[in-house]
Amino acid sequence: MAYELYYWPEIQGRGEFVRLALEEAGVEYGDVARRPGGVATMQRLMDGAAVTHPAFAPPFLKDGELLIAQTANILLYLGRRHGLAPRDEAGRLWAHQLQLTIADVVDEAHDTHHPIASSLYYQEQQAEARRRAADFIANRIPKYLGYFERVLERNPRGDHYLVGRRATYCDLSLFQLVAGLRYAFPRAMAQLAPRIVRVTALHDRIAARPRIDAYLKSARRIAFNKHGIFRHYPELDAAS
Amino acid sequence: MAYELYYWPEIQGRGEFVRLALEEAGVEYGDVARRPGGVATMQRLMDGAAVTHPAFAPPFLKDGELLIAQTANILLYLGRRHGLAPRDEAGRLWAHQLQLTIADVVDEAHDTHHPIASSLYYQEQQAEARRRAADFIANRIPKYLGYFERVLERNPRGDHYLVGRRATYCDLSLFQLVAGLRYAFPRAMAQLAPRIVRVTALHDRIAARPRIDAYLKSARRIAFNKHGIFRHYPELDAAS
Repeated sequence: MAYELYYWPEIQGRGEFVRLALEEAGVEYGDVARRPGGVATMQRLMDGAAVTHPAFAPPFLKDGELLIAQTANILLYLGRRHGLAPRDEAGRLWAHQLQLTIADVVDEAHDTHHPIASSLYYQEQQAEARRRAADFIANRIPKYLGYFERVLERNPRGDHYLVGRRATYCDLSLFQLVAGLRYAFPRAMAQLAPRIVRVTALHDRIAARPRIDAYLKSARRIAFNKHGIFRHYPELDAAS
Repeated sequence: MAYELYYWPEIQGRGEFVRLALEEAGVEYGDVARRPGGVATMQRLMDGAAVTHPAFAPPFLKDGELLIAQTANILLYLGRRHGLAPRDEAGRLWAHQLQLTIADVVDEAHDTHHPIASSLYYQEQQAEARRRAADFIANRIPKYLGYFERVLERNPRGDHYLVGRRATYCDLSLFQLVAGLRYAFPRAMAQLAPRIVRVTALHDRIAARPRIDAYLKSARRIAFNKHGIFRHYPELDAAS
């Protein structure tokens, strides 16, 4: 049976990290909430009284009877099944650790435009967003991407991938993180580029993988927009 | 060889979720950074050029040659080894999903007093903190704890624990979350109490476990304070 992915239909968001893994794995999957009536189905799986393992929030993945939520948890599951993670325990834990660190910076990227409350509009927290985004650009992006640069540099199997000498789900997620940060903060990312050459090369290497390349050019890839996690508000970017 | 836990010595913080699991497991461990010179040792394991799997941030756990970071990842490892998680894959993923959801609300609790930047003092972001904390109290705490209440209610094995019919690391973490929220937001939590009776009962059930009870009364338990994730600033709590 094909996997069923449940995520908000209009944005890449956290669902995109799962989509990239499903696409790279080359498996059949339905992006259920993008079909007519799909959002209602998704809501029923979250709120329905009969659901014993409800998700707190999308994305979640349905594999037969199994319902799995939390992006990094879904990738832990898929990585093991589709050769997108090391087989040994130490390698699996290392990959998962990196994924959880990516999840942390993704949360922080979201909060640059919503530092007060997700329930308020950006315009209602724009002054706070400017302060938070300035710190994110000055301190947090360099710290996180500098960390991943170091991880690549120290990989005993070479600096082409984060873990070992083959692509894992973490590499797909780091690609997405870089793509998202470039969309949201083009000036800041251009200024940082000379200090993260390995991270940049990894982004390009992942984008060139045949299945990812085909996916990125397809209608299945939702464009970046001002509803997702990564949003381009020029007033939040670095000064030129 | 005994486990070595590395975490900031003055606070419960994220390290506390790991401490609770180690205590409940009844295993020997060193809380390394609380010893003289321990923080320098911790820094070397994060920044040292020879470390191939550096942590982005504490806590991390050393088990012989294995270095594991990210709180939920450490618990995934310990849970499996010490009977603090289900043995089957579906149960393990469900427990991990709940833990990652606890991690999300812990992050949000932190950001109530640091909505702009971790690098700034609370006093430099107090106005923003008031706005963020008000939303956290009105919307986020009820949503998260209501979710865990529902998970308990729907557990086919009874409402004593989140997963199955025995305590797992998630229950220890939910205890800590409730304890922390009560310390930080006593008025808000008192007002919410009637709507989260199962969560409250679980908190008390965990606190009464012999090893946890002994730990909480020991000097190993650092007291809540104004440097940790959960901070009591009366101006951020609900109105009485």
